[in-house]
Amino acid sequence: MNVVPEPLARILEPAAIEAESFRIIEEELGPHRFTPEEFQVVRRVIHASADFEFAKNLRFGKGAIASAVAALRGGCDVVCDVQMVQAGVSEARLKRFGGKARVFIADPDIVEEAKRLGITRAICAMRKAAQACPGAVYAIGNAPTALLEATRLALAGEMRPACIVGVPVGFVSAAESKEAVAKTSLPYIAALGRKGGTPVAVSIVNALLILAEGA
Amino acid sequence: MNVVPEPLARILEPAAIEAESFRIIEEELGPHRFTPEEFQVVRRVIHASADFEFAKNLRFGKGAIASAVAALRGGCDVVCDVQMVQAGVSEARLKRFGGKARVFIADPDIVEEAKRLGITRAICAMRKAAQACPGAVYAIGNAPTALLEATRLALAGEMRPACIVGVPVGFVSAAESKEAVAKTSLPYIAALGRKGGTPVAVSIVNALLILAEGA
Repeated sequence: MNVVPEPLARILEPAAIEAESFRIIEEELGPHRFTPEEFQVVRRVIHASADFEFAKNLRFGKGAIASAVAALRGGCDVVCDVQMVQAGVSEARLKRFGGKARVFIADPDIVEEAKRLGITRAICAMRKAAQACPGAVYAIGNAPTALLEATRLALAGEMRPACIVGVPVGFVSAAESKEAVAKTSLPYIAALGRKGGTPVAVSIVNALLILAEGA
Repeated sequence: MNVVPEPLARILEPAAIEAESFRIIEEELGPHRFTPEEFQVVRRVIHASADFEFAKNLRFGKGAIASAVAALRGGCDVVCDVQMVQAGVSEARLKRFGGKARVFIADPDIVEEAKRLGITRAICAMRKAAQACPGAVYAIGNAPTALLEATRLALAGEMRPACIVGVPVGFVSAAESKEAVAKTSLPYIAALGRKGGTPVAVSIVNALLILAEGA
């Protein structure tokens, strides 16, 4: 029994698969309200999720893409809320500029501090990140408390993130955390509503990296 | 400025957030066609994606959950198509039974072989996995060619996977790869259509691990 369907037999190159996916997305999406740079981000999120709802949900703070791209070109780090996000961010692309994908949530001191203070590890990890890399791109795909704390720290002037990618997924506090950042004048990219998650955060960061490469 | 919305101030415990999320999901989903075990899987996928479409898309091969649960209890490994899936599978839960989350796609011999044969690394990784852990749970969230090859290897008797979790996301060949496994009598869990991805694969495996714990 041959289980390989015809289209796959014809298209096996990753670059060709991506190009064909982008073609389908543009065809099915039709006219849209995004700038060319924003659309590169939106298209990659839809590519990663197969969910056109993100064309409605994604919001871009003023100058957010330009700020992220300039910082990435300058070698800034990407702070990830969880390991899964770190595993998806293109290390090769980041490295070329001098940046690294960093995650603090599983650090022993964070686990300890969260227990001591009775707050989430995600909050403690953002506080540590604000000290370690205050100008980073923050990629938050899972923990609403991470996004709320990153927003609070930035508003309080305790860090100046190049961009807050705020896309936690979920039913409790995720939507509220994204509304909170979208109300500010910080450089943010957020997916309003419940949807988001690791692949959304990862695809936004990778789209920003590709924009930074000028491709 | 206090950006922490009220609901978050009240609910900070991860267990409480999960319980509240599950309550919302059950309330909004209403009556469904799943067995109690299947519903534990479906509920966790919706929890990870905030997407109720998975209640329509998820399909369970006959005996798939029982086969996966028995194998996990016996300490079987979980083969992941990509590192992001590996990063999300609960190592702590797996370890208690004696299993490990494994991924072959970035192994130097796989990179080399794929180049030599002119096929995807995902295909080569599945062939290596079939040799290394023929009875594993296969968790495929991204690469359609991995799912097609795992299905082919299992049908050819070259491995006897405890379960194939087939949930690649995408516009090219993803839907076809899931239809292919869903046509077989193999123990599979698949999300028909374009949707799926890393969090879907991860949440299915983690739901199976929780079922294996008898919780």
